Amino acid sequence: MDKLNLSKHISSQFNEELEQIRNHVMSMGGLIERQLFDALNAIANGDSDLAQEVMANDLKVDDWEIQIDKECTRMIAKRQPAASDLRLIMSILKSISDLERIGDETKRIAKVALESFNSDQQDLLVNLENMGRHVGQMLHDVLDAFARMDVEAALAVHKEDKKIDREYEAITRQLMTYMIEDPRSIPKVMNVLWSARSLERIGDRCKNLAEYIIFFVKGKVVRHVSHEKLEEQLRGD
Amino acid sequence: MDKLNLSKHISSQFNEELEQIRNHVMSMGGLIERQLFDALNAIANGDSDLAQEVMANDLKVDDWEIQIDKECTRMIAKRQPAASDLRLIMSILKSISDLERIGDETKRIAKVALESFNSDQQDLLVNLENMGRHVGQMLHDVLDAFARMDVEAALAVHKEDKKIDREYEAITRQLMTYMIEDPRSIPKVMNVLWSARSLERIGDRCKNLAEYIIFFVKGKVVRHVSHEKLEEQLRGD
Repeated sequence: MDKLNLSKHISSQFNEELEQIRNHVMSMGGLIERQLFDALNAIANGDSDLAQEVMANDLKVDDWEIQIDKECTRMIAKRQPAASDLRLIMSILKSISDLERIGDETKRIAKVALESFNSDQQDLLVNLENMGRHVGQMLHDVLDAFARMDVEAALAVHKEDKKIDREYEAITRQLMTYMIEDPRSIPKVMNVLWSARSLERIGDRCKNLAEYIIFFVKGKVVRHVSHEKLEEQLRGD
Repeated sequence: MDKLNLSKHISSQFNEELEQIRNHVMSMGGLIERQLFDALNAIANGDSDLAQEVMANDLKVDDWEIQIDKECTRMIAKRQPAASDLRLIMSILKSISDLERIGDETKRIAKVALESFNSDQQDLLVNLENMGRHVGQMLHDVLDAFARMDVEAALAVHKEDKKIDREYEAITRQLMTYMIEDPRSIPKVMNVLWSARSLERIGDRCKNLAEYIIFFVKGKVVRHVSHEKLEEQLRGD
């Protein structure tokens, strides 16, 4: 893990605390990655026990958010960080809020595994799973970019979100067509549709996480701009 | 507006800055309240011009978020606030993030007004509008609670979210039944369903805002607990 600018600190305890918070964010991220992976496997295998486990584990995600939030607030109050240290803590505070929401969406996705689908409907799940793997990779990549505070990797994740949006639109169209042809399937297929929506939202949140990395490293707020504009802004440095 | 603990500060400039940030949050909140009101009116009157206006105005919401975020960060770096001042700034940082997302949901809701509905489908919109007014009131109440930092009012908003959830479930059932009976209507009715979902999410975010008020006043993190548990915790003081 890159040591960032930690070496410049006079207080080694400050270093340790900051490093510990970063490690906690990585642990929280790792847990959420596993949760998403498990939720998708639960759907693929119709494993309702695993789905229940994912839903129960979301409490651990919530606990991480509260703990890291407290650690950051304590750090600000006690150590009065400035410049890049403060930016790092602000980035972490925003990141854990998005990570917690990713946890919520994952819980919603796991619920789909509690339904039983006929073989025809199983086909609909294949695209959902593929989209899920794609989003899972995006989550993995942005956590990796966070660990190394790597702007280029963050930019790649930011760009990827557009592809997720297109995948989501394709799935939505497919599911709507299916419902029109077999209206009795609507309540069940709607659950698949909600899950696709949740995956799309996770993609959005990974994009947010990428923006916080860029904010920390570059000191620039890059919220609410298109990917093209973002690239332009950063290349202009 | 309550002056809170501002009087204790030695630096009057500190007071002014904090008061200004609070005012900015109220302005941002007022804009979003108007946006939601306009989006619902656009749906009620099939007014696509008004809907377009709401969608364009979301940029102003985004600008507020960025501005207030910068003001808070600058305040932390320059003034090194502690105790309740730091809690206020942390609450504001979280609040503006939720407010910005409420803005996003409102933009999605406005899109429904771009569709044209036959008289049969108009009936479906009535329930959406009613739910919308209810959520609008919740948003109004939580902003009011924020202005006065009123824990009782925040608790009332927190409790209200359950009613919104029930309203959402009722609308979902009604819309699904309609789609089953008239499958050709699915793409159009789905838009109404997404809007109902957006309203439900706005309710969740109003609940978050209520939690930040309680955090500020009571110094207690009350995230991820049921309303009953929350009441219990606070009564135990």
